[in-house]
Amino acid sequence: MSSTYGNLFRISTFGESHGKAVGVVVDGCPAGLKLTEADIQAELDRRKPGQSKLTTPRKEADTVEILSGLFEGRTTGTPIGMTVPNTDQRSHDYGDMVELYRPSHADFTYDLKYGFRDYRGGGRASARETIGRVAAGAIARKILKEVCGTEILAYVSQVGSIDADIDPLKATFKTIESNLVRCADPVAAEKMAKAIDDARKAQDSLGGVIQLVIKNAPKGVGEPVFHRAEAELARAFLSLPATKGFEIGSGFAGTRLRGSEHNDPFVNKSGTKTGTKAGKSKSAASGFAAIGTETNRSGGVQGGITNGEPILCRIAFKPTATISMPQKTVDKQGKERTLAAKGRHDPCVLPRAVVIVEAMAALTLVDLFLEQRARSGLFT
Amino acid sequence: MSSTYGNLFRISTFGESHGKAVGVVVDGCPAGLKLTEADIQAELDRRKPGQSKLTTPRKEADTVEILSGLFEGRTTGTPIGMTVPNTDQRSHDYGDMVELYRPSHADFTYDLKYGFRDYRGGGRASARETIGRVAAGAIARKILKEVCGTEILAYVSQVGSIDADIDPLKATFKTIESNLVRCADPVAAEKMAKAIDDARKAQDSLGGVIQLVIKNAPKGVGEPVFHRAEAELARAFLSLPATKGFEIGSGFAGTRLRGSEHNDPFVNKSGTKTGTKAGKSKSAASGFAAIGTETNRSGGVQGGITNGEPILCRIAFKPTATISMPQKTVDKQGKERTLAAKGRHDPCVLPRAVVIVEAMAALTLVDLFLEQRARSGLFT
Amino acid sequence: MSSTYGNLFRISTFGESHGKAVGVVVDGCPAGLKLTEADIQAELDRRKPGQSKLTTPRKEADTVEILSGLFEGRTTGTPIGMTVPNTDQRSHDYGDMVELYRPSHADFTYDLKYGFRDYRGGGRASARETIGRVAAGAIARKILKEVCGTEILAYVSQVGSIDADIDPLKATFKTIESNLVRCADPVAAEKMAKAIDDARKAQDSLGGVIQLVIKNAPKGVGEPVFHRAEAELARAFLSLPATKGFEIGSGFAGTRLRGSEHNDPFVNKSGTKTGTKAGKSKSAASGFAAIGTETNRSGGVQGGITNGEPILCRIAFKPTATISMPQKTVDKQGKERTLAAKGRHDPCVLPRAVVIVEAMAALTLVDLFLEQRARSGLFT
Amino acid sequence: MSSTYGNLFRISTFGESHGKAVGVVVDGCPAGLKLTEADIQAELDRRKPGQSKLTTPRKEADTVEILSGLFEGRTTGTPIGMTVPNTDQRSHDYGDMVELYRPSHADFTYDLKYGFRDYRGGGRASARETIGRVAAGAIARKILKEVCGTEILAYVSQVGSIDADIDPLKATFKTIESNLVRCADPVAAEKMAKAIDDARKAQDSLGGVIQLVIKNAPKGVGEPVFHRAEAELARAFLSLPATKGFEIGSGFAGTRLRGSEHNDPFVNKSGTKTGTKAGKSKSAASGFAAIGTETNRSGGVQGGITNGEPILCRIAFKPTATISMPQKTVDKQGKERTLAAKGRHDPCVLPRAVVIVEAMAALTLVDLFLEQRARSGLFT
Repeated sequence: MSSTYGNLFRISTFGESHGKAVGVVVDGCPAGLKLTEADIQAELDRRKPGQSKLTTPRKEADTVEILSGLFEGRTTGTPIGMTVPNTDQRSHDYGDMVELYRPSHADFTYDLKYGFRDYRGGGRASARETIGRVAAGAIARKILKEVCGTEILAYVSQVGSIDADIDPLKATFKTIESNLVRCADPVAAEKMAKAIDDARKAQDSLGGVIQLVIKNAPKGVGEPVFHRAEAELARAFLSLPATKGFEIGSGFAGTRLRGSEHNDPFVNKSGTKTGTKAGKSKSAASGFAAIGTETNRSGGVQGGITNGEPILCRIAFKPTATISMPQKTVDKQGKERTLAAKGRHDPCVLPRAVVIVEAMAALTLVDLFLEQRARSGLFT
Repeated sequence: MSSTYGNLFRISTFGESHGKAVGVVVDGCPAGLKLTEADIQAELDRRKPGQSKLTTPRKEADTVEILSGLFEGRTTGTPIGMTVPNTDQRSHDYGDMVELYRPSHADFTYDLKYGFRDYRGGGRASARETIGRVAAGAIARKILKEVCGTEILAYVSQVGSIDADIDPLKATFKTIESNLVRCADPVAAEKMAKAIDDARKAQDSLGGVIQLVIKNAPKGVGEPVFHRAEAELARAFLSLPATKGFEIGSGFAGTRLRGSEHNDPFVNKSGTKTGTKAGKSKSAASGFAAIGTETNRSGGVQGGITNGEPILCRIAFKPTATISMPQKTVDKQGKERTLAAKGRHDPCVLPRAVVIVEAMAALTLVDLFLEQRARSGLFT
Repeated sequence: MSSTYGNLFRISTFGESHGKAVGVVVDGCPAGLKLTEADIQAELDRRKPGQSKLTTPRKEADTVEILSGLFEGRTTGTPIGMTVPNTDQRSHDYGDMVELYRPSHADFTYDLKYGFRDYRGGGRASARETIGRVAAGAIARKILKEVCGTEILAYVSQVGSIDADIDPLKATFKTIESNLVRCADPVAAEKMAKAIDDARKAQDSLGGVIQLVIKNAPKGVGEPVFHRAEAELARAFLSLPATKGFEIGSGFAGTRLRGSEHNDPFVNKSGTKTGTKAGKSKSAASGFAAIGTETNRSGGVQGGITNGEPILCRIAFKPTATISMPQKTVDKQGKERTLAAKGRHDPCVLPRAVVIVEAMAALTLVDLFLEQRARSGLFT
Repeated sequence: MSSTYGNLFRISTFGESHGKAVGVVVDGCPAGLKLTEADIQAELDRRKPGQSKLTTPRKEADTVEILSGLFEGRTTGTPIGMTVPNTDQRSHDYGDMVELYRPSHADFTYDLKYGFRDYRGGGRASARETIGRVAAGAIARKILKEVCGTEILAYVSQVGSIDADIDPLKATFKTIESNLVRCADPVAAEKMAKAIDDARKAQDSLGGVIQLVIKNAPKGVGEPVFHRAEAELARAFLSLPATKGFEIGSGFAGTRLRGSEHNDPFVNKSGTKTGTKAGKSKSAASGFAAIGTETNRSGGVQGGITNGEPILCRIAFKPTATISMPQKTVDKQGKERTLAAKGRHDPCVLPRAVVIVEAMAALTLVDLFLEQRARSGLFT
């Protein structure tokens, strides 16, 4: 079950850093969706390496090919197979890592679990694995956008000790994509870029936090009790390489408040301006449909079910494990050694991880949305 | 799929706050395990309500009955059905909640999702739902203990603004169970108990953080890429009512370190004292088997796979949503109203949640352990 | 995964022949369905033992109790837990079977798989296990009936060498339930009853075939390629004790025809009388909706998807393995011995299996129906 | 879930008749298995079209490419992605089928389910879909062969009215592969070949039966109650295009026997010649391990669990639905029309289906084998 994700919108990814190709099969995409390779490519381009000096120098066009599941420009309801070839494989760079385990990387545990490993570029543990997620996520995102008007937006909100200073609800795609770090706060973005470049020069690396904002998510999705929306989202993000933490809504900070301070009062939002197009239109909803919350410490999910408010999550990424400076480690026989990693790597994974976070959010939400659709409205 | 958890050790829980009973079916328990109702009851007793003034005054004996799956004191490999009757149901207390939505509770979203709801005591959204988890978790825990010597320990490490001051690896079951709060630091425990009682008197509630420590977890478990150990654990804990965040190892704080500060150097631990019986024995492991890490910012998981170091997680719980003081809310028609909740509830859920966190950890690990067992050692 | 069935309408059964109770948890039932214990009991009464001299003399009231998932007479969307106590357990009867393996029963293979077994009454391999299926199936059936008007009817069409002579589409519930064998052909029913009684007196047993007819099944259900409707049905029926074969539509006999003889010509059925209420109304469907087939050798499924024609299946049941006459066998040490089985058993399982076949059909169809519902109508 | 099969050895297939490629991802293959493209190709070559005048004239080399999951000639435990390009696509042949529904084919039901369809060559409903199954099955087969010495052999035992006359246990791979029909009885094979050629000339088609024999299957596999070995096998085979029935062991014929005639007496097989290498060695097994059955009407499975005797199944295939002679049908608007199908098709699918049946058997058994491995031997 390891590389398969989702139940009704199920993806199965494959591929290693230095194999022939990476890819994904999407099983369960509804029929009739208009889809082209350009829809997928647009997302892959945001993820691909070599975008700037802040990312790994590995060059990959990451061009997707759709092998099945489309007919006359629309999905047919059958599996969508997609591949992306690996082209810039410099396997000779990884000689050292045949014998030595990179600290805090997956080398040792892959040997422990599987008995041996593909050491070239991290093999399956490489972030190249996420290409399949992003390709599939592009489809999930399009479904949610077309059916529910869902907008999924992530950005880098912290790098090392530098914090962005912006209300997540005011973040815009344009600002985020206008800087190399993908931070919604342009001032912080500049500082972050410098910090990442400094780390790179110092043969070191940085971590940080990605903020996720989802507006117009489908309401009523999430399956109590084990597949609550926040549980599925947490799993989705913690399945990404380098993640160490997850928060929804008030998160860890909220644990210091009292219930009376933390609870989100319910209010009637008829007549209020809607969240996604502020200043332009007023909510036409009334009665039950107009119910919303005044504050949103719940982060858009209550009782494991989306309530119509924006979904707000934060994901912690540790500093990149692979660094060029010498480190203490051991070899396969347990002999203590010193490693100076060669190879190419990102001094900070966050700028490229933004689109991956969005993809995982889309894949998770579309699956819960389809499940909710399966059973609702039959007898109520 | 909502109330079913796990793949090879699969549980299916059922039951509402005010139904006849709650319970669970465990499907996939290995045959031959010695098991009695007392094994289950011991864990349920730690969860049950009415243990002190810090918890809800609802009185339930929570006596488990095993209906199937045992023969001559051992598991047979067939499903284990267990039920716990509900006895102290004061349904008349909940009159108010028929019409009004409790802020930050599941009332509104259940109506949104299902069209109507069982409003008595929160229905399925009540923490009584977790009884099935704890009962099944007791079995999972016993399997891990017997096969791997695994020790799973959780404790309250923060309540409101009060933080425990103790190294998680030094926490003991005895200390934790010796105070009402289930905090491993007796000094902080006293302050926490007072804070909870104060909140209760003020008709308010508190949140906090639970620290989890797992020693001697099976090595090599966790399935890259989507079912990494940390991803499965994150989902497990975020499926619990009132949770808002999850960290493993260095968590959010670690995102502020550089790679060179954060990486855990590999070392050879042959000859070192082992973690679980400190001071008593030296590690006999050598070569590959002696490889460990000097620090443990990874939290026992690298590349999604357990590495043999203690697993360290932190789970954020918001303050209890149900409070007695008047709150602003709406009714089903979206009309704004004021709610003063009656009913019985915990001013702080953390002391009782400790055993539930342990149960979810056990259920998650045993499932990954069985999956690892399915494929390993065939060709390597 | 062994005792869990279904994906979106998922059941988890438990219980042995001589345990405290048998039961089932239904996870994924849509909210709002009117449901009472009487709905369940009606089906269980058709399955229960001791109905006549043709069945086992074991006496069980098989009274169901619903423990959760209902509120004010309707399903809430949360798991429905149900139990049926075992009352008439004559464990002392089974002394012989502690040591000896009944030929063609599950005794030996349970020892092989699990290392030991609950030998009392066959343990989990007893047909008492099917109570949970029938209880859950009653709910599935009600959903299909209310939403699609689906009618699921099974009957015994062969016992030993006696064949019923009736068009399956003309079988009626009334005739079937009017005789002890549950055969739709009253003349054959009488002969079958005598044959079963003769076998019983001879300390022997009989097998046979059950015919299944489903009218007004939901159209368009079945998921190519691995979860085709016929594949899921085949699995459903072959999961029943004592089954040895499955046919849909023309089955094995159809393999001897040529394509030109076997194909079902498409026709326009607007204006034709509809199948389920023959002689009463004419089809109002037109255009695409009026398309049907002239013949039905496909058995209601084409390309793995239901086409709107009646679903026709046949399921082969071997003669009951447990017989009272002496048989050659071995003990646990492989020593050859003679067994004369005591205990109570059905000389022919088919009369009681009819309702179980219907239950499995309902469970399978409702799951496929919900899955079809999840994705259809979004973009087409 | 439609194109995903298996739980622990999970495959996800994709591809249509006239898309760019077909393929499969295998998720869950144990690490360390020696594997080359030649292992896969050998099986694909037995399935590929254009082998003789008995099969479709479509020419495809069906050359497989492994994209991931291998390192230094061994599986790494990560997903194995495989693709086979489509090269000989004569899409212009299918003009007629845009408007008209081929009787007993999937055209109508795909429109019913998905709203529209890829009409080129049957789209996903084409037997080209089975390439992914065969490629993945080759790996499953190799695992079973290496770990358990399992031999999986299928052959055509009936075509139209011609029956092979041979004991399934005496069938050999050499004889089967030596004739175009893949029948284990050379005399019948010749008659079958002529019958198929006659049908082809008459623009008609034939059906038949495939016999499956599995020797040295892993013992103790199959998961009571819903995932019994025979249930999983039945689903596996009924998921193949054109299948209408399944039997295990005595099948439908066995339903006419009495229990005393049908039961398989247990015997001690120590000292007996073993089934797979008859005449060469005697069984060394003793005690419990020497237990076997004298007859094998059970077909190698009892109580849903394999018992060590050969697994014997029969699968019914209807005559090919696509025939060239004119047939009565309707168009999309329900207007009655006459269709004379062009395109290329097999006058009888059975010769090429033999390897597909073997693949499904291997996939099913390896999944059950891994599941059995997950839990066994822990406490017994």
